[in-house]
Amino acid sequence: MDDYFCKLKSDFPIFSKHPDLVYLDNAATTQKPFSVIEKLKNFYSETNANVHRAVYRLAEESTALYEEAREIVASFVGAKSGEVIFTRGTTESLNLLAYSLGLSKKYRAFVVPLFEHHSNFVPWQQVAHILGLKFYPVKIHASGFLLEDVVKTINRCEKPFVFSMTGLTNSLGYRTPFEEVTKLVHSAGGVFVLDGAQLIPHEPFNFKESGVDFLAFSGHKILGPTGIGVLVGKEDLLKQMIPFQYGGEMIDRVGERDTTFAPIPHRFEAGTPNVAGAVGLGEALKYLERIGIEKISKHIKNLTEEAVKELSDIPGLTLYRPENSHGIISFSHENIHPHDLAELLSRLSNVAIRSGHHCSQQQMKVLGVSSLCRASFYLYNTHSDVKKLADGIREALRWFS
Amino acid sequence: MDDYFCKLKSDFPIFSKHPDLVYLDNAATTQKPFSVIEKLKNFYSETNANVHRAVYRLAEESTALYEEAREIVASFVGAKSGEVIFTRGTTESLNLLAYSLGLSKKYRAFVVPLFEHHSNFVPWQQVAHILGLKFYPVKIHASGFLLEDVVKTINRCEKPFVFSMTGLTNSLGYRTPFEEVTKLVHSAGGVFVLDGAQLIPHEPFNFKESGVDFLAFSGHKILGPTGIGVLVGKEDLLKQMIPFQYGGEMIDRVGERDTTFAPIPHRFEAGTPNVAGAVGLGEALKYLERIGIEKISKHIKNLTEEAVKELSDIPGLTLYRPENSHGIISFSHENIHPHDLAELLSRLSNVAIRSGHHCSQQQMKVLGVSSLCRASFYLYNTHSDVKKLADGIREALRWFS
Repeated sequence: MDDYFCKLKSDFPIFSKHPDLVYLDNAATTQKPFSVIEKLKNFYSETNANVHRAVYRLAEESTALYEEAREIVASFVGAKSGEVIFTRGTTESLNLLAYSLGLSKKYRAFVVPLFEHHSNFVPWQQVAHILGLKFYPVKIHASGFLLEDVVKTINRCEKPFVFSMTGLTNSLGYRTPFEEVTKLVHSAGGVFVLDGAQLIPHEPFNFKESGVDFLAFSGHKILGPTGIGVLVGKEDLLKQMIPFQYGGEMIDRVGERDTTFAPIPHRFEAGTPNVAGAVGLGEALKYLERIGIEKISKHIKNLTEEAVKELSDIPGLTLYRPENSHGIISFSHENIHPHDLAELLSRLSNVAIRSGHHCSQQQMKVLGVSSLCRASFYLYNTHSDVKKLADGIREALRWFS
Repeated sequence: MDDYFCKLKSDFPIFSKHPDLVYLDNAATTQKPFSVIEKLKNFYSETNANVHRAVYRLAEESTALYEEAREIVASFVGAKSGEVIFTRGTTESLNLLAYSLGLSKKYRAFVVPLFEHHSNFVPWQQVAHILGLKFYPVKIHASGFLLEDVVKTINRCEKPFVFSMTGLTNSLGYRTPFEEVTKLVHSAGGVFVLDGAQLIPHEPFNFKESGVDFLAFSGHKILGPTGIGVLVGKEDLLKQMIPFQYGGEMIDRVGERDTTFAPIPHRFEAGTPNVAGAVGLGEALKYLERIGIEKISKHIKNLTEEAVKELSDIPGLTLYRPENSHGIISFSHENIHPHDLAELLSRLSNVAIRSGHHCSQQQMKVLGVSSLCRASFYLYNTHSDVKKLADGIREALRWFS
């Protein structure tokens, strides 16, 4: 099995350029296969034109490629293509939702767990403040949260409410019980938003079957280009939302005093979209589908378990690992600052991991740390990478001792 | 001179792929030179990593390239790099401004001429509505506006105010007297925003010397990738603004109830930025600088004048051309719908022009039309392209008669 994934590495030109690179910062961004890079090149060399508004051949082809990318995304996550909105990334998807749901005047409160990435915490906190809604953070523990704390917060919050939560935390790789939370939220009449930035690259997901109302994820964390992301929403809910950015194709009629808007999904895509980005993301998803997310998920599970075993043997190292975690291992050493450890790992062993608060300061606070090291895996990683991580840490420790 | 620009065509792979293509939709989007496409490919193949938050080598290189792109943009428009914010495009730059200036609670009104692109009209109109500010459209005529109408609107509007205006209209290529308007706005204590989506690709511009307070433009209209744009703002004004999107690098400290933000320019760049897009845009500007915007400007002026001459000879054709226009010619035929004419031009002669309201419905209203044909030029266009446009129109007319 590892052989199969070992060979995949040759699909990613960055590993030809840097044959010794052990890239373990996949939760921050993933590398891109040849097919995606080629698709971008071909788009700009053969089909580049603005979309939707012209009748000449190139513009028609460009529009067809853009809308085909929407179909690919829809099929990948089990949604209708009219439910797929292209954004700049997860962050814009979530900001869009906070504003657009808030502006619809149908909701009185936003609820968000404290372990969220800042991009799924601060937009709800700040937009609630701007639009005069209530904001309720859900209490967390070192290893996640308790469903009873979710229930408590839902019970005391003003209704109707929006509950936004990740499927997999980027700080600790905690696979949340979002399915149960969705049910709790729905039975209290709320709307459930899933931040899928980490989840979607890591496990099979079907929007319709999941029951969630909205899903957000990024292209660059799933082998796609930078500057492209996705928001998926149930059709009836999207139709109730007020656009939060204005201009271009999202407009129907403009009067001096007011404006009417185009139907969904274009209503939420203001300005010239990142056409090449969308087309590249479509190609990335096709690449993943050829391999199969289920297979990738198993491979990453194996790598993570092996890494836990290897790292547990290293003296002075603490692993921060919730029971139900996947693809991410966060750790620290009793004597070395995470930044120093990460820097040494890069310098001595060309192992790329992340160090810092991982845009999740409230999670760090609960753990009683200001920062951690984080290694995160994706399909091109191998058992040899895990071994190099462990060896690299040992070498760094020797260097320090 | 035409020979020089004729040779430039070979820098753009789309014209090798489509040797007969006459691309005259540059106001919608421009084609990309090899160097930009190569830069994107190399970024993803050699340096791809997330920026700002990691200490390993690849992330440091990626961050350096991203910040170098900011320097290139700053130098290209005569601003400080700390004044340059990367956005998704002009539309996001202008929406960001409308929200962020509005949220700062320092302004009571937005003022915008009616000839603006919807992306510089609707954000101000709608955000004024959302945040409870006044909105004043400035009256226009078929060939632009009168400065006395600007003065009248400024006099009667609530103060302090924000005045947003294009440098070159995308519908008619009207080169506005934005320098004079900036002075009028400043002497009434207002803030002036320049929509440079069309202007920046077409004439030399120096932010500091111009006196404007903010400048917005898009990468894809200036040989750069899709999904990247720029907002430039005076440092002291940027510092007063409230961010409108939240998440990632723009954050300083996150508390349960409130959040503090990073310094400018990162404060306004929420989420993982379009790193490859920014790097590609930097490469596009370097390409343009090697040729010289002044030279390009003259070349386009020649082409436009020649096109006017050629098209004026065609019976039944009306040109909509303000006195001070540049790079864009809009026209219609007395008997043929603009869409039909554009479609025939593409089908019979492979000439790509745009038809429609050009996202400027209020401009169309003043002209008494619902749509127009538009040909727009850029550096790779030649006298032969102009000839093919005129010949193509003649052939389309024969086909109709």
